[in-house]
Amino acid sequence: MLLSQRITHLNTNGTDGWEVFVRARSMKAAGLPVVELTIGEHDIRTQTDILEAMHVSAMNGHTGYAMVPGTDQLRDTIAKRVSLRTGVPTDRDNVLITPGGQSALFAAHIALCDPGDRALYLDPYYATYPGTIRGTGAQDIAIQTHSRDAFLPQQALLDAAAPDAKSLLINTPNNPTGVVYPKETIEMIAGVCQRHDLWLISDEVYDTQIWQGEHVSPRALPGMAERTLVIGSMSKSHAMTGSRCGWIIGPKEVIAHLIHLATHTTYGVPGFIQDAADYALKQGADLEVDIAEPFRRRRALALKVLSQQALLRVIPPQGAMYLMLDVRETGHSGSSFANLLLETHNIAVMPGESFGRAAAGHIRIAMTVDDNVFVTALQVLCDFAQSLGK
Amino acid sequence: MLLSQRITHLNTNGTDGWEVFVRARSMKAAGLPVVELTIGEHDIRTQTDILEAMHVSAMNGHTGYAMVPGTDQLRDTIAKRVSLRTGVPTDRDNVLITPGGQSALFAAHIALCDPGDRALYLDPYYATYPGTIRGTGAQDIAIQTHSRDAFLPQQALLDAAAPDAKSLLINTPNNPTGVVYPKETIEMIAGVCQRHDLWLISDEVYDTQIWQGEHVSPRALPGMAERTLVIGSMSKSHAMTGSRCGWIIGPKEVIAHLIHLATHTTYGVPGFIQDAADYALKQGADLEVDIAEPFRRRRALALKVLSQQALLRVIPPQGAMYLMLDVRETGHSGSSFANLLLETHNIAVMPGESFGRAAAGHIRIAMTVDDNVFVTALQVLCDFAQSLGK
Repeated sequence: MLLSQRITHLNTNGTDGWEVFVRARSMKAAGLPVVELTIGEHDIRTQTDILEAMHVSAMNGHTGYAMVPGTDQLRDTIAKRVSLRTGVPTDRDNVLITPGGQSALFAAHIALCDPGDRALYLDPYYATYPGTIRGTGAQDIAIQTHSRDAFLPQQALLDAAAPDAKSLLINTPNNPTGVVYPKETIEMIAGVCQRHDLWLISDEVYDTQIWQGEHVSPRALPGMAERTLVIGSMSKSHAMTGSRCGWIIGPKEVIAHLIHLATHTTYGVPGFIQDAADYALKQGADLEVDIAEPFRRRRALALKVLSQQALLRVIPPQGAMYLMLDVRETGHSGSSFANLLLETHNIAVMPGESFGRAAAGHIRIAMTVDDNVFVTALQVLCDFAQSLGK
Repeated sequence: MLLSQRITHLNTNGTDGWEVFVRARSMKAAGLPVVELTIGEHDIRTQTDILEAMHVSAMNGHTGYAMVPGTDQLRDTIAKRVSLRTGVPTDRDNVLITPGGQSALFAAHIALCDPGDRALYLDPYYATYPGTIRGTGAQDIAIQTHSRDAFLPQQALLDAAAPDAKSLLINTPNNPTGVVYPKETIEMIAGVCQRHDLWLISDEVYDTQIWQGEHVSPRALPGMAERTLVIGSMSKSHAMTGSRCGWIIGPKEVIAHLIHLATHTTYGVPGFIQDAADYALKQGADLEVDIAEPFRRRRALALKVLSQQALLRVIPPQGAMYLMLDVRETGHSGSSFANLLLETHNIAVMPGESFGRAAAGHIRIAMTVDDNVFVTALQVLCDFAQSLGK
């Protein structure tokens, strides 16, 4: 009486990469003061006016089954937003509301890949990517990128892996690296997808957090709207991580199938949460800028602190809530550095190894604590690195 | 550039069985008065004190990522409830909170079955069952039951199908039939699972709606706790259908794997919804009895109306929100009967055919409208049947 192979093989190497995080949480639970720079969770809560909108919706009776594809209202709002941001004509039938971006990533792979199909993704990657693909029964095929290229994907490796693959998953602005893919990179990726007839899954959940350069959605490039599924979410843009509200945007015939899948996997998203999301999106760009502002500010603070040393190389943080540092000059792996830092200074960061082979020797720092705490922790971290480097 | 086989083959026969429902909704949208006796949605909304508990939780800041397995508090509450109801020692580690019962059904099949594995279920079935199994890439194998046996499963058919199967999905109290499996049937099913080393998935979402007999959870039988996953939900018991909050109860090692799966498929359930569910469950059995009461009442009313005719045979409604009627004496299929009834009398019921081959020639009536409207509709339906039968 065995469990399925796919569930017992979700995590490679028998680890899910969250050991330092779990260790930090245990230390905190034991009463130790720990500065947590691990997960992508805002240090603010969801705004109260959004929560009031949710409560009004619920008290008005929006507590029964919502329509499985999402409410017409929220689908229209998201369609309009995407049309405005990308110039691609988009309407309700291009949009499926999902219980969060993670659920959208899983559904997209179920829809595109059959068991055994090869699903490509780029290393380093957001920690759940390989398990998401394996959970669907598809083969997870990581394409390496390199620190020296600022972790931008290179055409030769993509072209080599693409011929017998079904899909390619990209993420820009990127977690964990903070890199925003320039237009040329997006064009190169679009070319690979078209030459090799690949589906593209574009995870754009950080698209409101751009510090440098410009976010280009591959769906806006010629010939790409018909082969691209865009993953979006309220989590990062509106500090609504816990509300689990995201979406998939894609060709209407794919969305129609994804709606059938949703009937069999989620049966929709709470109506009162969708109404709260709709309210939040209708507050417009100012709210999104406000929510992003702390990360913009802390990024500037971090670059100032880091400019006073040369041991830790910074991968240019162009977007998202994270800083990626190359710690190899200290003689340590990312994992060893992170564990030592936690043990000696009660500061928790994510080892690059949690995000794949390509990020080995790096650490990821979430810019998710108060400015002063953040700057002090970063200074301590730099001093600690110097002490190791000597 | 094809979609996956599994998503394009979710619905058998190119239909999802919801045509009458959709037709009724269109008629309503066009301004026609339609009595909807189709879906399993209460005619009341979620109680306001439960919604206030949710709001308090959200305003107190429970809006960030909740723990993926569920909050300790809700898992403890459910574990305690299950222990009390079944006598099976159950703690937090036996419980995974899911975004609804449907999500739990899907996750259970992903966990137990690999692509191509045979997953058994009983016909008639809740409409999503076959697509849920096909969505995971497993083979959906329906085991027929018969109207003459009150749709109780028969051992010979189960024993014949079990040898090369991986799992068996059962549902008691049953949707669509309203039948509550007696203890002997549950013991027979347990025997089949043990003889053939099958996993049992027991969908018990109607376990607070028992009108006759007693609900027996197969997990409580000797040797079954280690091979049974129980699916539960707040939807039916607490009129919280739209909140999408359910759970899986099972062996700890299976739940541990299911938690990894949840990290890759849902990333948890909103914390404020879990707090609302915890509040609701802590109100105790009185609330559950109150929520179930309208269905108990309408069942009695329905039996009275139906006793005045002999053409439509009633399958004994022992639990849940539905009535199953055999309409074959009218010379019509369930589908033909339902469509004619909608066209001529603006009353919408579900054709038995929507729930599988075994329910052909039947209709399912949801007892989900006001008592007077319900009784009148039922009388009209009986008269309509008589007019067909002549």
